[in-house]
Amino acid sequence: MKTAEGLAEYLDARRAEVASALAAFLPTPPDAPEVVDSALRYSLLAGGKRLRPILCLASADAVGGLRSMAMPAACAIELIHTYSLIHDDLPAMDNDTMRRGRPTLHVVAGEGMAILAGDGLLTEAFHLLAREPASQDAHIALRKLRVIETIARAAGVEGMVGGQAIDLASVTPDDAGRLPHLDADALRAMHARKTGALIRASAVSGAIMGGGTAVQIGAIDSAAGEFGLAFQIVDDILDVEGVAATLGKTAGKDAAAGKPTYPALYGLETSRRMAADCLERAEAALRRVAIEDDRLLAIGKWIVNRSN
Amino acid sequence: MKTAEGLAEYLDARRAEVASALAAFLPTPPDAPEVVDSALRYSLLAGGKRLRPILCLASADAVGGLRSMAMPAACAIELIHTYSLIHDDLPAMDNDTMRRGRPTLHVVAGEGMAILAGDGLLTEAFHLLAREPASQDAHIALRKLRVIETIARAAGVEGMVGGQAIDLASVTPDDAGRLPHLDADALRAMHARKTGALIRASAVSGAIMGGGTAVQIGAIDSAAGEFGLAFQIVDDILDVEGVAATLGKTAGKDAAAGKPTYPALYGLETSRRMAADCLERAEAALRRVAIEDDRLLAIGKWIVNRSN
Repeated sequence: MKTAEGLAEYLDARRAEVASALAAFLPTPPDAPEVVDSALRYSLLAGGKRLRPILCLASADAVGGLRSMAMPAACAIELIHTYSLIHDDLPAMDNDTMRRGRPTLHVVAGEGMAILAGDGLLTEAFHLLAREPASQDAHIALRKLRVIETIARAAGVEGMVGGQAIDLASVTPDDAGRLPHLDADALRAMHARKTGALIRASAVSGAIMGGGTAVQIGAIDSAAGEFGLAFQIVDDILDVEGVAATLGKTAGKDAAAGKPTYPALYGLETSRRMAADCLERAEAALRRVAIEDDRLLAIGKWIVNRSN
Repeated sequence: MKTAEGLAEYLDARRAEVASALAAFLPTPPDAPEVVDSALRYSLLAGGKRLRPILCLASADAVGGLRSMAMPAACAIELIHTYSLIHDDLPAMDNDTMRRGRPTLHVVAGEGMAILAGDGLLTEAFHLLAREPASQDAHIALRKLRVIETIARAAGVEGMVGGQAIDLASVTPDDAGRLPHLDADALRAMHARKTGALIRASAVSGAIMGGGTAVQIGAIDSAAGEFGLAFQIVDDILDVEGVAATLGKTAGKDAAAGKPTYPALYGLETSRRMAADCLERAEAALRRVAIEDDRLLAIGKWIVNRSN
């Protein structure tokens, strides 16, 4: 790192800022009814890596912008990520009962309230993006609209929701009891929507709010695309190797459900190599536009070397 | 009506415009995966009164603005209304199997896909609001942000999601098997969130995009608040009197579930009088600021006199 600050300190500092901002941005009772407020805080404030908001803030840093300008986008994306976990965990979807080391929301609050809490988090994300940073400045207004469009596209049917729908359909037998076959290309395309799109949107939003140039934003988008792919490959590796206690969620589920995974398709060693290649391509994309801030790459290394 | 056009013609013309715009604004395959695209179109293009988008367009008319400027907001609100119906109909919520005269989405596509289609519609609403009308004009950008904030607040935990959570909690027994008691004030507050907020946001968004003054927007907000209350009272009356074939959904469910309704609290005659009083207050609010366009009031009368 070029800065005196090490990566661990940088991550801890950003994570603390994000936690404060999340708590400050959410509507509180009596505006938010107590019953839904407690449900969404249960999931949102349960911890988690905060990868997406940190990537957003680091991208604002990387283009020389103010992190405070990117904080609303960072928080909005964490709200969207959290809603997606709540809905994915539902019995009608992945039917997971543990998440971040605690019972999932539908286990403690009921399915109906879990659906509503997810809906509330998704809606409040856009409420926050439209409202903050409070400014009547035309340049800021245009940046905010661009960020809302970027995040909504990434989270919607072209992105995360679409990827989750493809994933759900892949484990839903047709009338003859057959499952659709996903080959390696289809798997990669599904993950690009399901997890990659929002990771890219995190970085791009931070670069937009930080005032990055079109060339800088494009390079950060490319690098974040590589981070997203690496993230998924490592997720699959951890799912194969993982222990429920470390992951804080049920391990080995994807393989057990017959979902194709990177280790199943390519083996563990090749999968690890593929994740490392992603980082090299990300570094090349950033170096080409002279983004020399090492924190973005350090976040990429954190993604690949993480153990949960 | 001051215009030569009668109300029925006005409603039909706006409904046709909204149908075209909805079809044009939605992402299509291959951007949207086929499986989720067909699910959301099943619900969105099933018809319906299109009350909210028509109210939005009529409000743009009422302030002398361009309806085309308000069309993205009109469509976004219909996407949000449709998502709320899909999620409310789920087994974990109201468990309805019929809607608009057809089986509900979770019956035909499964619960998981219905949850995802709702999530997709909600997200695409904001995608559309940020993107359309396409303009780099600073005044338009600020109006769009204000509309996104207005709609998100109305649809989120302070509004629709919060109201639905209060409603869900009201039919969920506590550990001792008791149901929370909703008195008349609490009932009204719940409906103001659950249905009133989005109806108000429809009118306010149209007035903002139409370039209305603060005073005009305030009066339209007040009038729409009365429309929303009248809508709920009439909904309760129809639920009591209703026939499933006319409503296109299961009648008598609220009363059967022990939910408090206006006719149960005040009787049918008083409830009808209350709905009529709403229209009078709405008319007074609009006249005070010299909004003489009769179409808004005609929409109010349609709400009160409707039979489904």
